Amino acid sequence: MTRQKKFYAWGYADEELTADEIRSWEGEVARHYNLASFDVSPPPQADQIALRPSRVVVPAALQPLVRTDHFARLEHSYGKAWFDTCRMFMRSVPNPPDAVAFPETEQDIIRVLDWCAQSGAKVIPYGGGSSVVKGIEPTENFEKVVTISMRCLDKVLEVDPMSQAARIQGGVYGPHLEDQLRNTPFTMRHYMQAYRCSTLGGWIATRSGGHYATLHTHIDDFVESTRTVTPTGTLETRRLPGSGAGPSPDRMIIGSEGILGIITEAWVRLRKKPRFRAATSVRFKTFHAGADAVRGIAQAGLYPANCRLLEAREGLPDTPWQSEEAVLVLTFESADHLLDASMSRALEICRDCGGIADESALEDENSHRSGAAGAWRNRFIRAPYYTEHAVARGLLATTFETSMTWERFHDFHATIMQVSRDAIRQATGREGTVTCRFTHVYPDGPCLYFTLGGVLDKRVMLDQCTSILTTCMMATVDHGGTTTHHHAVGRFHKPFYDKQRPELFARALRAAKRELDPRGMMNPGVLIDP
Amino acid sequence: MTRQKKFYAWGYADEELTADEIRSWEGEVARHYNLASFDVSPPPQADQIALRPSRVVVPAALQPLVRTDHFARLEHSYGKAWFDTCRMFMRSVPNPPDAVAFPETEQDIIRVLDWCAQSGAKVIPYGGGSSVVKGIEPTENFEKVVTISMRCLDKVLEVDPMSQAARIQGGVYGPHLEDQLRNTPFTMRHYMQAYRCSTLGGWIATRSGGHYATLHTHIDDFVESTRTVTPTGTLETRRLPGSGAGPSPDRMIIGSEGILGIITEAWVRLRKKPRFRAATSVRFKTFHAGADAVRGIAQAGLYPANCRLLEAREGLPDTPWQSEEAVLVLTFESADHLLDASMSRALEICRDCGGIADESALEDENSHRSGAAGAWRNRFIRAPYYTEHAVARGLLATTFETSMTWERFHDFHATIMQVSRDAIRQATGREGTVTCRFTHVYPDGPCLYFTLGGVLDKRVMLDQCTSILTTCMMATVDHGGTTTHHHAVGRFHKPFYDKQRPELFARALRAAKRELDPRGMMNPGVLIDP
Repeated sequence: MTRQKKFYAWGYADEELTADEIRSWEGEVARHYNLASFDVSPPPQADQIALRPSRVVVPAALQPLVRTDHFARLEHSYGKAWFDTCRMFMRSVPNPPDAVAFPETEQDIIRVLDWCAQSGAKVIPYGGGSSVVKGIEPTENFEKVVTISMRCLDKVLEVDPMSQAARIQGGVYGPHLEDQLRNTPFTMRHYMQAYRCSTLGGWIATRSGGHYATLHTHIDDFVESTRTVTPTGTLETRRLPGSGAGPSPDRMIIGSEGILGIITEAWVRLRKKPRFRAATSVRFKTFHAGADAVRGIAQAGLYPANCRLLEAREGLPDTPWQSEEAVLVLTFESADHLLDASMSRALEICRDCGGIADESALEDENSHRSGAAGAWRNRFIRAPYYTEHAVARGLLATTFETSMTWERFHDFHATIMQVSRDAIRQATGREGTVTCRFTHVYPDGPCLYFTLGGVLDKRVMLDQCTSILTTCMMATVDHGGTTTHHHAVGRFHKPFYDKQRPELFARALRAAKRELDPRGMMNPGVLIDP
Repeated sequence: MTRQKKFYAWGYADEELTADEIRSWEGEVARHYNLASFDVSPPPQADQIALRPSRVVVPAALQPLVRTDHFARLEHSYGKAWFDTCRMFMRSVPNPPDAVAFPETEQDIIRVLDWCAQSGAKVIPYGGGSSVVKGIEPTENFEKVVTISMRCLDKVLEVDPMSQAARIQGGVYGPHLEDQLRNTPFTMRHYMQAYRCSTLGGWIATRSGGHYATLHTHIDDFVESTRTVTPTGTLETRRLPGSGAGPSPDRMIIGSEGILGIITEAWVRLRKKPRFRAATSVRFKTFHAGADAVRGIAQAGLYPANCRLLEAREGLPDTPWQSEEAVLVLTFESADHLLDASMSRALEICRDCGGIADESALEDENSHRSGAAGAWRNRFIRAPYYTEHAVARGLLATTFETSMTWERFHDFHATIMQVSRDAIRQATGREGTVTCRFTHVYPDGPCLYFTLGGVLDKRVMLDQCTSILTTCMMATVDHGGTTTHHHAVGRFHKPFYDKQRPELFARALRAAKRELDPRGMMNPGVLIDP
């Protein structure tokens, strides 16, 4: 874990997009917005950003675990949203944590929490720092704040091959988790865009959505039991395949975003590595025709692993912006059996909605990595790396996601698309781009994932972006959607979550928090007010 | 809803087992225990049971909704466990509710709750009254208690065919729910043994397990949103196919067993009525061989609708008690596609574990209603009707259920079987019968369902049964199981739940309850102490 991450943007300090990737993307953007050239701001250097002095005094006994140096504090100040990188480019970090702790054991966490309790510091649990909702960002009303990075608690502690489950520490990054399973027949296979720099504990705390587009979409379904250190003690649930004993204690922890405690371990369900695959892509005349097919597949009980519907202009290279076409990336996978029957039936449903499948992909064993599926996969993995380049050029490149039942989907989709386009036009004075895809689908509705682009005014681009996103999110919850399907609430979505969640639930959650965290020290400002 | 239920036992007053059924069962029992004859106690008449006078005065405005007559109070005093019917046969009902309210609208519920709050009465929400864990039973430390029967709120209010979901009132009984869907392509298909006399609200409050042996086993997975009247107000969640916004508010309500409020409505997921079926039964030399096959099927991602492993002596007529054989009842069903591939693969897994399938059943369209599957189905549906006849004859006939990961399953199964046999022998002085089946299975472990039989001493049979069950349940939680997979906690399982649930979760739940129910009036004694 010595590899240095880029403090101001996604990824590691030693990796960059290739010159070719940047050139090709610049060309696309310039053509689309009719721009002659770009004014490229230089990325920040760590020493260009002034931080106020740390306001905590680390006791001698904790000094080996706690850093207060400039770089550690800077690196842990923001997540990885467009507005985070933007503020880094502005060299504006007014509220860094005062210290960053790197506990190596659960006992270390308890010692750090005790110190924070005694010294009146607030605590921000920190996994991979990939939040795009200000989930790990100190705010100005904190008097002292200590970020607890979980990165040293990164072990797969135990694998139970009979039950296909593993006990894993909360601080493990995605790739390192899978590495530790490499010599077993198993995989967790909970991939998402932030996979490389996010942790199991973070996934559980934020209810992440993963690789599977149907069935086991959220981390919720993977969790067999959890172990959480709270300021009041340790809450460990029983490992059970299923239980009906009272409201699920795990479901109180899952999605708690650090306000109740720090998830130190979990037993999670694994599965055998897939041996069989059937993958292709299907083109539809319109997004709504594709949506009809996806609904049919979701309601047929076919359970594809991938079932992502994209606007072709977003998913396929060289698609003209005016195209109304959509492409469905469709994959079935199994460790146990062939999937021809499932794929055939899914393609039948697609054909009924006018879909045309890529027949050659069906013959190709690696088709999930080539063709439209491969293009999508590559874009999906690389997308976060473009954020800093967008910021450097004053370009908007941000996303938000929600979910909606099928019955209201058409109207909702049209409304949010329109609101988003209007919001960009209003904030920037010119047309932007808005695209929608389905990242996960359910029998009762899809997760809609919107991507926004536009040309901003660098002098006020942070305000422009905030205003656009706020308008979009408010419309989303006002029209019945959720403020987040898998990005979490954090501090950024809190005003929208306030409108969405039942007031009595907020009161119940607040009461539960007071019980586990009587000082209100755990990640304040997230989810609920004290 | 005018049909009268039997106040002292399962079912309706106008239905009985046939003389043939009773004779055949008596014969079996007599042979097994070597009994010459039975001393059959007469069932209680309502007027043979004295109830203390009601301690509440119903305000005039509520009198049309609230009954305080003998029969209404008697009928709502106990659930339907063996020990409930036993106490009815003992003519012992020391703690009946003081009144039973039958609200017709949500506003009625609020009015009744307000009255209870003002008069200091405790409130017991009542669905179908099928609890086997004292979930709806007033206890002696309640000063006044009003049971709120939900049976008038029994409508399917809205069907959304596009999203395949319906808005349904909490008081609807299983059959009446499906009746109201009869003219749609949909079904909820959440069947369980108590289906005929239990309600949607009850299923949600108790986290019932239903028809599906894999995948969507618990009601939890069917719930899209909930609406709950609490003493502090109404808590309604958003209808969303999926969300990652904070801990799930529905998951706080699901399993809350009436301590937070009364579930008046829910949006639930439906599915199309199945058109395709593949069903058979598979015999195994031992229960453990069958368990290996079931584990293989569960981990293969095949998702059979039915996958119930029974000891042959429990599931098949004319199997000698000494037989170690097991039978797997295996059904795939779909509204969309043929299931031959899934069934073939499942049978391959069975064969690898020495299983021998009933080939003729595979050819038979109605095989899920004939052969071993049919025999099991019939026993399953009829079983609760035998309880009163067991009680009348001083015979133990009770069950408990739990779940366990596969890795510990062998030892756990052996231990609980032994503990149960010992407990019966110790309490009764003779050998009883203990059988185990799987009712639901997961990739990481099965739900184990134990059935206990024995010959009791009528003079002390209530104590004998209680002592046996207490010993079994305590061993279950001491050895890492859950106190309930789908029977709920109620008052009966509370001591075992106390050991199982994390103390910090109990504190959080208590705090949440205090917020929603500050007077502690809702179903006190269930799940947690105040």
